[in-house]
Amino acid sequence: MAMIGGGKDAFIGAVHRIALNMDGQIEMVAGSLSATASVAIESGKTLFLDENRIYTDYKLMLEKEAAMPADKRIDFVSIVTPNFVHFDPAMMALDKGFNVVLEKPITFTLQEAKALKAKLDATGLSLLLCHTYTGYPMVKQAKQLIKNGTLGKIRKVYVEYPQGWLSTFLEGTGQTQASWRTDPAKSGKAGCMGDIGTHAFNMAEYITGLQVTKICSSLNIVVEGRKLDDDGAAFLQFNNGATGVLMATQIAAGEENNVKIRVYGEKGGLEWKQEDANSLIVKWLDKPAEIYRTGGGYNSSFASHNTRIPAGHPEGYLEAFGNLYRNFALTISAKMNGEKPKEEWLDFPGIEEGIRGMAFVDNVVESGQSEVKWKEFTV
Amino acid sequence: MAMIGGGKDAFIGAVHRIALNMDGQIEMVAGSLSATASVAIESGKTLFLDENRIYTDYKLMLEKEAAMPADKRIDFVSIVTPNFVHFDPAMMALDKGFNVVLEKPITFTLQEAKALKAKLDATGLSLLLCHTYTGYPMVKQAKQLIKNGTLGKIRKVYVEYPQGWLSTFLEGTGQTQASWRTDPAKSGKAGCMGDIGTHAFNMAEYITGLQVTKICSSLNIVVEGRKLDDDGAAFLQFNNGATGVLMATQIAAGEENNVKIRVYGEKGGLEWKQEDANSLIVKWLDKPAEIYRTGGGYNSSFASHNTRIPAGHPEGYLEAFGNLYRNFALTISAKMNGEKPKEEWLDFPGIEEGIRGMAFVDNVVESGQSEVKWKEFTV
Amino acid sequence: MAMIGGGKDAFIGAVHRIALNMDGQIEMVAGSLSATASVAIESGKTLFLDENRIYTDYKLMLEKEAAMPADKRIDFVSIVTPNFVHFDPAMMALDKGFNVVLEKPITFTLQEAKALKAKLDATGLSLLLCHTYTGYPMVKQAKQLIKNGTLGKIRKVYVEYPQGWLSTFLEGTGQTQASWRTDPAKSGKAGCMGDIGTHAFNMAEYITGLQVTKICSSLNIVVEGRKLDDDGAAFLQFNNGATGVLMATQIAAGEENNVKIRVYGEKGGLEWKQEDANSLIVKWLDKPAEIYRTGGGYNSSFASHNTRIPAGHPEGYLEAFGNLYRNFALTISAKMNGEKPKEEWLDFPGIEEGIRGMAFVDNVVESGQSEVKWKEFTV
Amino acid sequence: MAMIGGGKDAFIGAVHRIALNMDGQIEMVAGSLSATASVAIESGKTLFLDENRIYTDYKLMLEKEAAMPADKRIDFVSIVTPNFVHFDPAMMALDKGFNVVLEKPITFTLQEAKALKAKLDATGLSLLLCHTYTGYPMVKQAKQLIKNGTLGKIRKVYVEYPQGWLSTFLEGTGQTQASWRTDPAKSGKAGCMGDIGTHAFNMAEYITGLQVTKICSSLNIVVEGRKLDDDGAAFLQFNNGATGVLMATQIAAGEENNVKIRVYGEKGGLEWKQEDANSLIVKWLDKPAEIYRTGGGYNSSFASHNTRIPAGHPEGYLEAFGNLYRNFALTISAKMNGEKPKEEWLDFPGIEEGIRGMAFVDNVVESGQSEVKWKEFTV
Repeated sequence: MAMIGGGKDAFIGAVHRIALNMDGQIEMVAGSLSATASVAIESGKTLFLDENRIYTDYKLMLEKEAAMPADKRIDFVSIVTPNFVHFDPAMMALDKGFNVVLEKPITFTLQEAKALKAKLDATGLSLLLCHTYTGYPMVKQAKQLIKNGTLGKIRKVYVEYPQGWLSTFLEGTGQTQASWRTDPAKSGKAGCMGDIGTHAFNMAEYITGLQVTKICSSLNIVVEGRKLDDDGAAFLQFNNGATGVLMATQIAAGEENNVKIRVYGEKGGLEWKQEDANSLIVKWLDKPAEIYRTGGGYNSSFASHNTRIPAGHPEGYLEAFGNLYRNFALTISAKMNGEKPKEEWLDFPGIEEGIRGMAFVDNVVESGQSEVKWKEFTV
Repeated sequence: MAMIGGGKDAFIGAVHRIALNMDGQIEMVAGSLSATASVAIESGKTLFLDENRIYTDYKLMLEKEAAMPADKRIDFVSIVTPNFVHFDPAMMALDKGFNVVLEKPITFTLQEAKALKAKLDATGLSLLLCHTYTGYPMVKQAKQLIKNGTLGKIRKVYVEYPQGWLSTFLEGTGQTQASWRTDPAKSGKAGCMGDIGTHAFNMAEYITGLQVTKICSSLNIVVEGRKLDDDGAAFLQFNNGATGVLMATQIAAGEENNVKIRVYGEKGGLEWKQEDANSLIVKWLDKPAEIYRTGGGYNSSFASHNTRIPAGHPEGYLEAFGNLYRNFALTISAKMNGEKPKEEWLDFPGIEEGIRGMAFVDNVVESGQSEVKWKEFTV
Repeated sequence: MAMIGGGKDAFIGAVHRIALNMDGQIEMVAGSLSATASVAIESGKTLFLDENRIYTDYKLMLEKEAAMPADKRIDFVSIVTPNFVHFDPAMMALDKGFNVVLEKPITFTLQEAKALKAKLDATGLSLLLCHTYTGYPMVKQAKQLIKNGTLGKIRKVYVEYPQGWLSTFLEGTGQTQASWRTDPAKSGKAGCMGDIGTHAFNMAEYITGLQVTKICSSLNIVVEGRKLDDDGAAFLQFNNGATGVLMATQIAAGEENNVKIRVYGEKGGLEWKQEDANSLIVKWLDKPAEIYRTGGGYNSSFASHNTRIPAGHPEGYLEAFGNLYRNFALTISAKMNGEKPKEEWLDFPGIEEGIRGMAFVDNVVESGQSEVKWKEFTV
Repeated sequence: MAMIGGGKDAFIGAVHRIALNMDGQIEMVAGSLSATASVAIESGKTLFLDENRIYTDYKLMLEKEAAMPADKRIDFVSIVTPNFVHFDPAMMALDKGFNVVLEKPITFTLQEAKALKAKLDATGLSLLLCHTYTGYPMVKQAKQLIKNGTLGKIRKVYVEYPQGWLSTFLEGTGQTQASWRTDPAKSGKAGCMGDIGTHAFNMAEYITGLQVTKICSSLNIVVEGRKLDDDGAAFLQFNNGATGVLMATQIAAGEENNVKIRVYGEKGGLEWKQEDANSLIVKWLDKPAEIYRTGGGYNSSFASHNTRIPAGHPEGYLEAFGNLYRNFALTISAKMNGEKPKEEWLDFPGIEEGIRGMAFVDNVVESGQSEVKWKEFTV
């Protein structure tokens, strides 16, 4: 595979490389790692790329790789650039026949996301969208418990993503991450809601199997001088009648990344949080709560397929990320071999989740600006 | 003191008695413990009351006690009846010169609460409103940390009270607690929001020292056949510009009573939850989080005054409740002796909190019915 | 009832009074609250005792109370003096026909404990020994789960009681608690092991229903100048072949009173700790761990009988202590009425536990001084 | 690098490969992955090894690799075979000039470990011993806090490693891991103490910087039919006068791998456990406890050097393992380039820890069989 973006000093590119290296089944052989040529070259060398496959322009890379013989050229490309540089390389990659990995939010606009879907439908290629938290074994277990009806009909969802790293005007210091993520020209319509609200939204829909149909949001710019929302919350209505509350903030001073979800059905509820990622608490109306654990022999095939080591040895964020890559690789490998991917492999976020996420950005921003309480969730 | 309501089979009356007995400074000497005469009498006997002071009618009790010599008669009366029987006995008690303890919500309507305030102002008597959670030492510590500016200007408040006990149509079985609490004629305009939403609201205002100025709520009746809200959430705006989210539900199957609050300022945040009531987590932008503990020598006088035993021996809900009674008793005793109560003693919820709570019920219900997003929080 | 010791400035006397007041079924009517007459009198007044029943000499009190008519005199006496003043008042109280409550360790020597047992057997009176931790509902639940065979045959016990309050030479400052507890003339053969090791030992035998048969201990005096052990550990062998480790220390700087026990059987294990006193974790070989909670409808009658408020409202140390008093009072009341006490009422620690505890002190000290590894646990 | 052992169905080999792949700086190019030729070949192919570098005999591999040109041949070899096949390949690898990675316990006997040390001294080559838990950032932080005197002089150490996986006679089912680990001919003198007791022992010495000087142990075979200890505990004395308790068991039904250490000094204590691996609790005599977190900006360079992602995204066991490999690779790379490795890189376990671990096995077993309490810890 090849990477677009993610040169030295970039944050998420290095994370992707750990994730894709993890299981020894994916090899990064090419890269266009920065828009700055010198950085692209130096980064490629540091990563031991063949010098012929270190590119300073992603378009050139996609051209050249496409021209290689099938057994040499890359199978997919990971695009880890800021949001406003997602769509063009993704479309071109698909045009050249490459599968695509994209960071969330999938594109800059909902329209772009829909265009990507059309292209994917036309080409039959695959896309992985990095909603990393869905890669945790206990998140998958939660989804399966609900899917199997264990909790009964779902009634209530609380999902939250509190961060504190933007409690100060960090973009004023020139810090790279803060700068582009708070810039409407690079990040899109939403700040906090695009960056982490989309994760919370995705978690809610992924775990429950439900879809949001109405939304009422309130977004804030808390830190003076900031251009995009750095805090907000939304009431949600789901297509089965359940309701929910979504909270995302980047100004909760002292908070790290403890994304957390609670779902309640008629018979019981469940709770998962990243801080204790290997535990899934399941609560019941009339019997003791249970603690499902990563690696437990009682887990579903979806959880155990995504577990690497014996219970009690914590698996973390990088393993969750690795699970996304592994399932994506298993799927495209099966497809290339004309085999049917297993259901467990196909359980990774893709274009549908990307479109829902972009719709969330649109809807949450529009509702935030409206004086009317409820807004239909439109896609 | 004397009690109105709280006969056998009542829930909260027994809790009050444990709380007031706790420190050996308050003696229950009279009672009108039930509207049913036989229950009132039997309950009084079980509690070793003097047979002459077991009453079957609270009006008669207040008359007779008022007629006793000053050193014999009661100092205050605890009214632990359902919401719709709060106002009349409270007014009469004040008229007769007795201080009053009331369960929340303070009255059936906001108007009644205001009338109580007028009477209190006129008589100079005291009123304790049982927002029990404010009696926990670590809740008091949280308030003091914020008051002292430790966290900087407050920006965000999350407060929640999840319960699961009304996940089924429990009132259909005739269960006493469920029956009156879900009945608009006995409980008032709101169900969940009146019963536990008021606690959450009070926690938010108590700990931050702020006041809500705008509200946007969404209330639900989740269980079929129920007459009042059993679930809801609200966005809040505070008078310093901070915002908040309040969540209260009685249909979160498997949840007990884990009321929890998180507050974030410019410099750090804090977190308290009833499940771990003796810990207060304080988080910082740039140093390790701290765990304040009940009994720690570093705590404020407000926390230590309300602590009975050495750190590590958990103090629970009944001790928090006992703190309310103890501070109320210390205050009225000081007032009766012409002394100035200490600031720590005066730190119990009273009529102002009662009015705010009734206003919360009115506002949260009205906002819930409105299609407009924000409503001014009116009192 | 009456109290011996526990005047103002004493620690545990106040705790006893909260515990016995808790349920409104026990009334303290007399007291010999200090060996210093002025303190005894002042303390009695503060507690609203009838001036005729404030005594400055416990012998006089026992004489006078014994001479009162049956319906006026006390039913039992609580002895809350330092260890070396346990035996004499207890024997005299029994001689005078009063039931007795004693703090642990029950006496100064094992011989005294045996003499107390002989007296109890002869008189048919009852004794409560304040191993408070056995009063927690979840500790009782743990005992019942094991008794019912839920965990299979017990194999391993870990029990620990870490404190940090004697990390410095506190007795050198004249601090009351530290002074007598570290003084062999007042505390007995053991310091840490007598004060909290006995609690740990009692927990292990109470919860498992097993008895220690062999011991190998290592005791330390860590703080310079101290006269008794302030730290130690012991290997244990039980009468069913199980083994265990007991740890107790008073020099674990920063620790409060987080007594904790873990027990493992063939099928699963359980874990309880005072820091999270209302949870009992039960772990299984092949299914998710479970969290039993105080107030859960699934608990045994032994747990629910000792629970006062709905699940999720934490019950703490004082309630556990109150449970000891309540069960003791229910038992002696039943006996006085010629009724058979319920099994749940009788579940409080008494003379047998007292003798085992004193034997523990003897054995753990003797083993600690021995160069031979294992010592028979003799009684 | 190359791997010896770790073919398909082996457990720890796969873990090593994830760990060494993690940072993209180490490439596995050769392997002698099984003593069974067909397995060795098939495993090598699965791992995409060059067919010329898939070996069926580790001796042949070491010969051939040594004969390659310097820029082609391997730098080090990872030996992930059962204990009894550690020494021979390690010695041969060193003889051929290759650095060595070994699983713990380092060898079958203490003598072998000493022989390895002599060889390492003679060759100047490096050895990594996989005490994985020392790779966690918060374990490194704990070591640095103690090294810097933050806690004052160390007085007490509690270290424990509870597992439950050998609660049944698993070796009787032919399960691979259980079979060799409980077989004296393959595992060595000790079972539980060799397998996980060595980890606990290493943690205690690593974090405190102290050395054990005396030991008193009690080992048990709990499960009928088992040949080696599956449970045990030891009292420890350290070279600064501190004492400790070490507990390790494989029959704590329901336990996973929650290795945990607590260390107390004159001023405070600390606690780390694998279950919450990204937190380090530091407790103080006179101020609130603190929670150090992986990724916190306040951490030492030793912690931050071993951290890959922002705080709150949990790093797990595989990252800890990856840290061992990364530091080892950085060190041997520096040495090969004639540079001085940084102090942070050199902070990985090696031959000294290996010798201490084998001495622990010898001493804990000998003490366990002795009727005398204390044994000098001999090396």
